[in-house]
Amino acid sequence: MNKKLKPLLDELTEIAHIGGAISVLYWDLETYMPKGSAEARSEQIAYLSGLSHKKFTSEKFKNLLGEFVDLQSGKVSDDFTQTETRMLDELYKDWKKSTCKPQKFVEEFSKLTSQAQPIWADARQKDDYSIFSPILEKIIKMSQKEAEFLGYETVPYDALMDQYEPGLKTDEVNLLFGDLRDGTIALLNKIKNSSAADYQHLVKQKFDKQKQWDLGIDILKAMGYDFNTGRQDYAAHPFTTEFHPTDVRITTRIFEDSFLEGLGSTIHEGGHALYEQGLDATWYPTPICESISLGIHESQSRLWENIIANSKAFWSHWLPKTKAIFPQLKNAKLDEFYKAANTVKPSLIRVGADEVTYNLHIMIRFEIEQMIINEDFPVSDLPELWNAKYEEYLGIRPDSNANGVLQDVHWAHGSFGYFPTYAMGNLYSIYWVNQAETEIADFWGKIANGEMLEFREWLREKIHKIGRSRSASELLSDVTGKTLSAQPYLDYLNRKYGEIYGV
Amino acid sequence: MNKKLKPLLDELTEIAHIGGAISVLYWDLETYMPKGSAEARSEQIAYLSGLSHKKFTSEKFKNLLGEFVDLQSGKVSDDFTQTETRMLDELYKDWKKSTCKPQKFVEEFSKLTSQAQPIWADARQKDDYSIFSPILEKIIKMSQKEAEFLGYETVPYDALMDQYEPGLKTDEVNLLFGDLRDGTIALLNKIKNSSAADYQHLVKQKFDKQKQWDLGIDILKAMGYDFNTGRQDYAAHPFTTEFHPTDVRITTRIFEDSFLEGLGSTIHEGGHALYEQGLDATWYPTPICESISLGIHESQSRLWENIIANSKAFWSHWLPKTKAIFPQLKNAKLDEFYKAANTVKPSLIRVGADEVTYNLHIMIRFEIEQMIINEDFPVSDLPELWNAKYEEYLGIRPDSNANGVLQDVHWAHGSFGYFPTYAMGNLYSIYWVNQAETEIADFWGKIANGEMLEFREWLREKIHKIGRSRSASELLSDVTGKTLSAQPYLDYLNRKYGEIYGV
Repeated sequence: MNKKLKPLLDELTEIAHIGGAISVLYWDLETYMPKGSAEARSEQIAYLSGLSHKKFTSEKFKNLLGEFVDLQSGKVSDDFTQTETRMLDELYKDWKKSTCKPQKFVEEFSKLTSQAQPIWADARQKDDYSIFSPILEKIIKMSQKEAEFLGYETVPYDALMDQYEPGLKTDEVNLLFGDLRDGTIALLNKIKNSSAADYQHLVKQKFDKQKQWDLGIDILKAMGYDFNTGRQDYAAHPFTTEFHPTDVRITTRIFEDSFLEGLGSTIHEGGHALYEQGLDATWYPTPICESISLGIHESQSRLWENIIANSKAFWSHWLPKTKAIFPQLKNAKLDEFYKAANTVKPSLIRVGADEVTYNLHIMIRFEIEQMIINEDFPVSDLPELWNAKYEEYLGIRPDSNANGVLQDVHWAHGSFGYFPTYAMGNLYSIYWVNQAETEIADFWGKIANGEMLEFREWLREKIHKIGRSRSASELLSDVTGKTLSAQPYLDYLNRKYGEIYGV
Repeated sequence: MNKKLKPLLDELTEIAHIGGAISVLYWDLETYMPKGSAEARSEQIAYLSGLSHKKFTSEKFKNLLGEFVDLQSGKVSDDFTQTETRMLDELYKDWKKSTCKPQKFVEEFSKLTSQAQPIWADARQKDDYSIFSPILEKIIKMSQKEAEFLGYETVPYDALMDQYEPGLKTDEVNLLFGDLRDGTIALLNKIKNSSAADYQHLVKQKFDKQKQWDLGIDILKAMGYDFNTGRQDYAAHPFTTEFHPTDVRITTRIFEDSFLEGLGSTIHEGGHALYEQGLDATWYPTPICESISLGIHESQSRLWENIIANSKAFWSHWLPKTKAIFPQLKNAKLDEFYKAANTVKPSLIRVGADEVTYNLHIMIRFEIEQMIINEDFPVSDLPELWNAKYEEYLGIRPDSNANGVLQDVHWAHGSFGYFPTYAMGNLYSIYWVNQAETEIADFWGKIANGEMLEFREWLREKIHKIGRSRSASELLSDVTGKTLSAQPYLDYLNRKYGEIYGV
C-alpha cells in the first residue's frame, strides 16, 4: 500500500484493535459468560464502543482522512491505485455515515435500544404487545430521525437499508420482491395441493447431541473452514464473529429431537465464516478487507446451507456417513431423506422456515417496515397488519403476538432495513452456484463425492477476497455478467420443489 | 463515597473497563483461542495495555488525583473518611509506581519480555540454556534499571519485590526464610529417614477425566465459589482471572493418571477466586476492591489446597463420595488415602512439589534472585548455582537445565521478586486457619461434615472484603493480633507430617 497512507492505517489499526476486543467481549457474552456478569459486561462493551466511535469521528481522524479525500465532495486525490482509491472512497462513506449523526443522538439511540431488548424479551415471553409498543414507538421515531441524518433521495427507508446493503434502493427491492412473491406464492399453492408423502419423521427422531456436533465439525472441515484460525461453540442464537482475519468463529445450537436444524445452523454460519476467512488480509484493517454487504454475506451462508447442503448430491455423499453415526437412519433411502430435508410447510416463525416460504416472511417485514418508516403507520395497529399479511401470504394466522409481531429482536435493536438483506442473499446465492456450475467441471459430481474445496476456492477467488473493492451489483456483473433479478432463484425453486413435490 | 471523587472514579472506571477487556482477551488466549490467532491477539492486548497505561499516567489523571493528594509528598487532603483516605493513598502509590518509569522504558521492557517468552520456551524444550541466557542478561539489566526507577532504601531487590508484596523488605524475608529453611530441612531429614509406607499407588491410577472434573465442580460449590459470577475452564497453566467483581473465573487441568493434581489445582484456583469474589464491590474500581498482595492472595489458595483439602477431616467427608465416583478406590482406607495425598518426596520441579518441600524451591529462587539483582551474579554461572542449591536443600541434583534453571517462566516475564510471595502465602495461610479454629465452633468437625461455607464467610468478613484498606501486616494484626513468623507454619508441618511419617 502507498506509504503515505501509513498514519491513516495506524489509526485504523487502533480502531480495529478496539473493535476486535469488543467482538471478543460479545462472543464471550453469548457463549461462556456467567449469568451474573451481564451488567458489567454491557458497561465494558458500551465504553469500548464509545471509544471506537470517538476515535473514528475525531478531529485527528478527520485530518488524516482529509489528507487524501476532499471531505466535502468525497473526491479521492489522484495519486493512488484503483484499489487504494476504492478503499479511501469506502472509508469516506463509512466516515460520513458515522459523523453525520450527532454524538448525543448516537448515545441516546444506543441507550434506548439497550433498554428495549429486555423489554422486548419480556413482552414476547408474556405475549403482551403493550409492554413493547411504547418503546417501539420511540425507536421508530429515532430511526426516522436517523434516516434524516443519513440522508436519502426518495424515501427515508432507503437511508436505513443503505447501512446494511449499500446502494440498494427501496424501489428496486419492491420490484424484485414483487416478482419473488408472485412466483413463490404460485409455487407454494401447487405444493399445498400436491399429495406427496411426508418423510419428516426420518429427521425428527432422537439424535445424540455430541454425535450431531461431531458430524457438523466433519462437514465444516470438508467445506474448508480453517480450524487453525477458527472454532465452533454453542450459543442460543447462532452467529459468526471475527476478531481479526485470523480469528473467525462460529456458534451453533443442537436439538436432540431435530437433527437437521443444528446442522443447518452450523453450515449456515460456516458459509459466513468462509467469507470472512477468505477476505484479503493484506488489506486489513481497511474496508477492502471487509464484506460487501449483509446481502452478499447471506448469499454465502444460504448457498451452503440450502443449495449445497440440502441437495441430493450432498446427501448422496453424507447420508452413508450419517447412517454410520446414527443407526436409527439405517433404513432411510436417499430420496426420502432428501425429501425430508426439503419439506415445505408454511409456518409462523421466520427462523425455522423452509427454503420456499422463508422469503415470504422477509417480504412481510419489508412491506411493514416501509409503512412504519415512510408512512408513519400506527404502532398500535402493527399486530393486526402483521397477522393479516401472514394470512394473505402464507395462509396461516398467528395464534399470538409472541408468534407474530413480537418474534424478532431486530426492531428492538433499531435495525430497520436489515430484514430485506436476508432475501437478497437468497437471490444472489443462486447466481454464484449457477456460475460455478459452468466454471467447475462436474460441479455436482464433486459435491456428490464430498469434494467441496474446489468450490470454496472458487468462491474465495471470485467473491471473498474481493471484499469492498467492488459493490454488490459490480460483483454480480464481474462474476456472472448479469444483473439481479428474482427469476433465477424462482427457477431454482420451481425446478427443485417441482421434482420433490411432483408439481 | 464522597461526591467530590466522582470525576476521579469515572476515569478509574474507564481504565477498569479496558483492564477487564484485556483480561477477557488473555483468558480467551489461554482457553479457547485458535492457534493461528496468536499474533493478532498479542497486538490487540499490547495496544489496549498501552492505552490503559497511557490513561493512568496522563496529565488528565495526574490533575484528577492531584485535586486530593499532594503529588510530591503523597499526603491526602483532610476531608475524607478513613477508607477514602486509604483508597487515595493506595491509588497514589500505584500511580507513583506507574509514572516513575519513562514510557519508553516501559515499552522496551514489555517488548523484551514478550520476545523472551518464546525464546525461554524454546530453550527449555531443547534443554539449552545458551539459547535463553543472552536475553535473560538483558532482562536482568532492565530489572535492575527498573529498581532504580522505583526507588529503594537498602537493596534494589526491595523495589522489585514491593511490586508484588507492598512494604515487604528483603531483610525481613531473609529472617523468615532462614527459620523456615532450617525447620523444613530438619523435618525433611526426619521424613527421609522414616520407614513409613508409601500409598501413592492409590492416587496414581487411571481416573476418568470428566468424573474428575465433576468432582472438582462439586467441591468448588461446597467451598462457596459462586458459579453465577464464575466458571471453570481448561487451561495448560491454571490461573484465576477477574474481569470485574461479578466475573471471576478459574481454569484447571486434569491428568488421567494423576487424580489429585487436577483437583488440587481446581481447589487452589478456587481459593484465589473466593478472595476475588469476596472483595467489596461497592469500592470497585478503586484499590479498596483489590487484593492486598500476592502473598495474601496465595495464602487463600494454599490454605484451601493444602491445609483444608489435604486434611484428614476433609477426606473423611469427600472420600466416600469419591469412592462412589471412582470404584477403583473402593478399598482405599481413609488413613492410607490421606497419607497418599500428603506424600513428601523431594523433586526437581516446583509446581509439582509437596507441601513440605515446596518452600525450599521458593527459597532457592529467592536467594538466587538476590544475587542476580543485588550482586550482579554472572548469568553464565546460574545453572551451576541452581543445581548446587538443589543438592544442598533438597538432596537432589537436576539432571538437566530444563528441569533446573529453565523450569519457570517468571524470569522471562521479568518478574524478579515474585517468587517469595508463594512462600509468604504459606506462612500467612496457617495464621488464618489457626484463628478460624478459635472463632468457628467445631471447625474441623464442620470440615469433616463437608460444611465449608461458614469458613468461607469467615474469610470473607475477616480478609476478602477488607481489600487494600489494610496492608498485609495490618491485616494479620487485625485478624490474629500477631506478627508474622515462620514458627506457626513449621509447627503445622511438624504436627501434620510428624503424625503421617511417625517422626
